[in-house]
Amino acid sequence: MLTIFSDESFMKEALREAFNAAESDEVPVGAVIVSKNRIIARAHNMTERLNDVTAHAEMLAITAAANHLGGKYLEGCTLFVTLEPCPMCAGALHHAHIERIVWAADDEKRGFSRFGNSLLHPKTTITKGVLADEAKKMLLDFFQKKRE
Amino acid sequence: MLTIFSDESFMKEALREAFNAAESDEVPVGAVIVSKNRIIARAHNMTERLNDVTAHAEMLAITAAANHLGGKYLEGCTLFVTLEPCPMCAGALHHAHIERIVWAADDEKRGFSRFGNSLLHPKTTITKGVLADEAKKMLLDFFQKKRE
Repeated sequence: MLTIFSDESFMKEALREAFNAAESDEVPVGAVIVSKNRIIARAHNMTERLNDVTAHAEMLAITAAANHLGGKYLEGCTLFVTLEPCPMCAGALHHAHIERIVWAADDEKRGFSRFGNSLLHPKTTITKGVLADEAKKMLLDFFQKKRE
Repeated sequence: MLTIFSDESFMKEALREAFNAAESDEVPVGAVIVSKNRIIARAHNMTERLNDVTAHAEMLAITAAANHLGGKYLEGCTLFVTLEPCPMCAGALHHAHIERIVWAADDEKRGFSRFGNSLLHPKTTITKGVLADEAKKMLLDFFQKKRE
């Protein structure tokens, strides 16, 4: 079994990024971008540290992946992210022509799919629910600690 | 008449940014963000130069305005932009709690309003069509030159 290249193994790396976010007192969302079974970008939410609402994990990962590839289109790439992207990030993923998006936990409030799948490029494919429980637990623990 | 603080006068500054974009061979879209009748951020589309699909004029202006204010929320601020924002930028403006958006030309293809106004924060107000002809002409001229 090639579990080394499984969706779960890459999502674990995204969860590791989310954990780093929580350690920095950021809402724990992490992302990695994979091209040809290699991680070419990894990022976590940095909206607090950068004081910038645009600094979601996905946005930072898109910018980093484009830098790595030397071109702004992420064709053939897969984004693994621990929470369903918001409309801002879905719009950016549309512009980037990403091939596939895999997310863990659904975002019932601000997930892009509440606005219809047309926010994404028609060719982009989606897999959801990969390690969703782990991602949800990290978010719930974070917000519970905040309230204490 | 306080024309110095009119929507037209601020949109002229956004058009000046769009002109700078065209001069750098970028799709000519420009934006300024105004707080208390002062321009606190100005930017133009830099997707080519930065090799980054997220580098729309609005995104760069949001980041710059937050830097200027020292906080990530743009309450009390108005964005003037020469083209209707796309869903990515509308999502970012939602996160930023911007008070008001003024745009010039509608974007019939990828304007956020094709996806319903719920992409924006419910408190954000909109004015459109300010100096629309000038903004449209700049875009048409740009793409016509590209085809020549």
